[in-house]
Amino acid sequence: MYEVLKGRDFSELLKGDVSFVLCIGNTKTAEIPGITVAGANPDLIKFTPPADAELLYYGKCRSIPFPPATPDGKPTPALITYTALRLVKPQLFVVDSGLMIKPKIPYVSINAPVGENIYEREAMNIERVEEAFEYAKIFGKEVSKNSDCLMIAESIPAGTTTAGAVLKALGKEPKVSSSMPENPVEIKMKVIERAASRVNSEDPIEIIAKVGDPVMIGVTGVALGSEKPVVLAGGTQMAAVANLIKLFKKDFKVNIATTSYIAKDRTADIVGITPEDANVIAADPLLKNSSKEGLKAYEEGFVKEGVGMGGATLLAYVKGYESAFLKEVEKDYEKIVG
Amino acid sequence: MYEVLKGRDFSELLKGDVSFVLCIGNTKTAEIPGITVAGANPDLIKFTPPADAELLYYGKCRSIPFPPATPDGKPTPALITYTALRLVKPQLFVVDSGLMIKPKIPYVSINAPVGENIYEREAMNIERVEEAFEYAKIFGKEVSKNSDCLMIAESIPAGTTTAGAVLKALGKEPKVSSSMPENPVEIKMKVIERAASRVNSEDPIEIIAKVGDPVMIGVTGVALGSEKPVVLAGGTQMAAVANLIKLFKKDFKVNIATTSYIAKDRTADIVGITPEDANVIAADPLLKNSSKEGLKAYEEGFVKEGVGMGGATLLAYVKGYESAFLKEVEKDYEKIVG
Repeated sequence: MYEVLKGRDFSELLKGDVSFVLCIGNTKTAEIPGITVAGANPDLIKFTPPADAELLYYGKCRSIPFPPATPDGKPTPALITYTALRLVKPQLFVVDSGLMIKPKIPYVSINAPVGENIYEREAMNIERVEEAFEYAKIFGKEVSKNSDCLMIAESIPAGTTTAGAVLKALGKEPKVSSSMPENPVEIKMKVIERAASRVNSEDPIEIIAKVGDPVMIGVTGVALGSEKPVVLAGGTQMAAVANLIKLFKKDFKVNIATTSYIAKDRTADIVGITPEDANVIAADPLLKNSSKEGLKAYEEGFVKEGVGMGGATLLAYVKGYESAFLKEVEKDYEKIVG
Repeated sequence: MYEVLKGRDFSELLKGDVSFVLCIGNTKTAEIPGITVAGANPDLIKFTPPADAELLYYGKCRSIPFPPATPDGKPTPALITYTALRLVKPQLFVVDSGLMIKPKIPYVSINAPVGENIYEREAMNIERVEEAFEYAKIFGKEVSKNSDCLMIAESIPAGTTTAGAVLKALGKEPKVSSSMPENPVEIKMKVIERAASRVNSEDPIEIIAKVGDPVMIGVTGVALGSEKPVVLAGGTQMAAVANLIKLFKKDFKVNIATTSYIAKDRTADIVGITPEDANVIAADPLLKNSSKEGLKAYEEGFVKEGVGMGGATLLAYVKGYESAFLKEVEKDYEKIVG
């Protein structure tokens, strides 16, 4: 089940050979207490992106002994993405888009730096951003040569805060989502406003360097390098990236696939913060029907999106796995989470 | 123009969507005086693999201000590969298969170590070899999903010496080629024999770890991971890899594309050292007809092969660029070498 939230139904783009490109990285913004729950405790947050990527390849993590989870045990959305990729078997590449810890998989290096805490200082050196952006574009171009469509996903703790700062810097309302049902809006807004006040141009590279994060470099670069249609798989963060992409290339056709949980989030506004001519689809993995507490929690506003969960669900649906999907997700949940 | 040296003509494999995967790395074996001319001077040898890779993406090098060359100015075979890829535009990926210097491009990391000097000690830690091999297999599998054929190439100075040590360890005559017309056979044999005496098993991982080099990990791994046909683009080194592949998987169909200069090399024996059921093609880039001294030198036995030159030439021929090829190579030579 999916719903077109905005624009047209682009799901037919996923009928051919899809490449799934996951961009993962870290921003020290995640070290601000209370800003993110993308990790069971503060020391584990930096392991979440590599562990998510490992889960997609192996069905288990290697850098940590268990899948990433929130402090109260809600499991990573990579679980749902894993099931979709296991069923559909698209080509999968992972881009090191500024990691603190390298994943135990083959990965693509674009020489991206780790992002600084945007409350304290500029996110990244602009020359480093330019270099990594160039490499990401090259990689996007090469991947797209043998594919019909690129689906690009992300994993970066505190990524909704940096996304909010980018939206604010662009003069948009930074209505961002969160992996918590009670979005820590106050902390986020304090960070977002202070960071955004640093920006005084509409140059997308400069905005990323000042208030963004390294995963934005990977996603925008791969998308802009692609010679084939692109689907951005994600929520708030992909909305911010979509606006950046439009600054690089006005006529770029933005397609966003997210989850129904983002669509329902009243602290966020996925339709409002995406570019005017963007197409946005929300896929519903129907976790409300699950017998597993950890999965049902998504319906109550936990986690919501990440690691391309919404896009991967849409991909599974387009490829004919809609009726089997929840059962397969539960099977993987049992095996992986126990 | 190309010639089937052994087995059947496999060139039709290249008619579909090809992925060109270049595995680059370093072995400290290249630091033995006189063993290689893959660099204008000893300090530059370690830059040759990254510079070759940069040349393929940009038509120029970035890590060094000029293309790799021998001490007497014979240019890197990457030049010919560059022309072929520029014309055919296949998907290109570069794998960091144990580099001393990272290239200024997007590249795939398989966490391969730099190879030690095999005259002095074991090439690599066996756990590191196993890990990198696993990652290379995963990458090969993913790339192959959206391609019809993988062409795998290499660049590693002193790679013919480590290849010779592998052949010797396998009980084969280590008749290896060289980038010099006067192959420094005596130095090489001293290294090869001492290294090979260290091996007492037919386990391919152990052989690579004891006397091989990290590029062998990348090439064997990517090849064995592929779900589609594979063409190994290279000479002596690919012959050694082909024998290793057969130890992993007896029924693997080995296709090797090399240059006519390797075929003609009397110190080498590409037909004799390849597995019995291998298919071997030698492509002739017809550099003898060139007006450029640096290109004509190939006909006199300089350089001969590397960076997938023979395979890339074959690819250009299959894709319809045979009659234009030499002129296009010369055009690039003028622009790049001057």
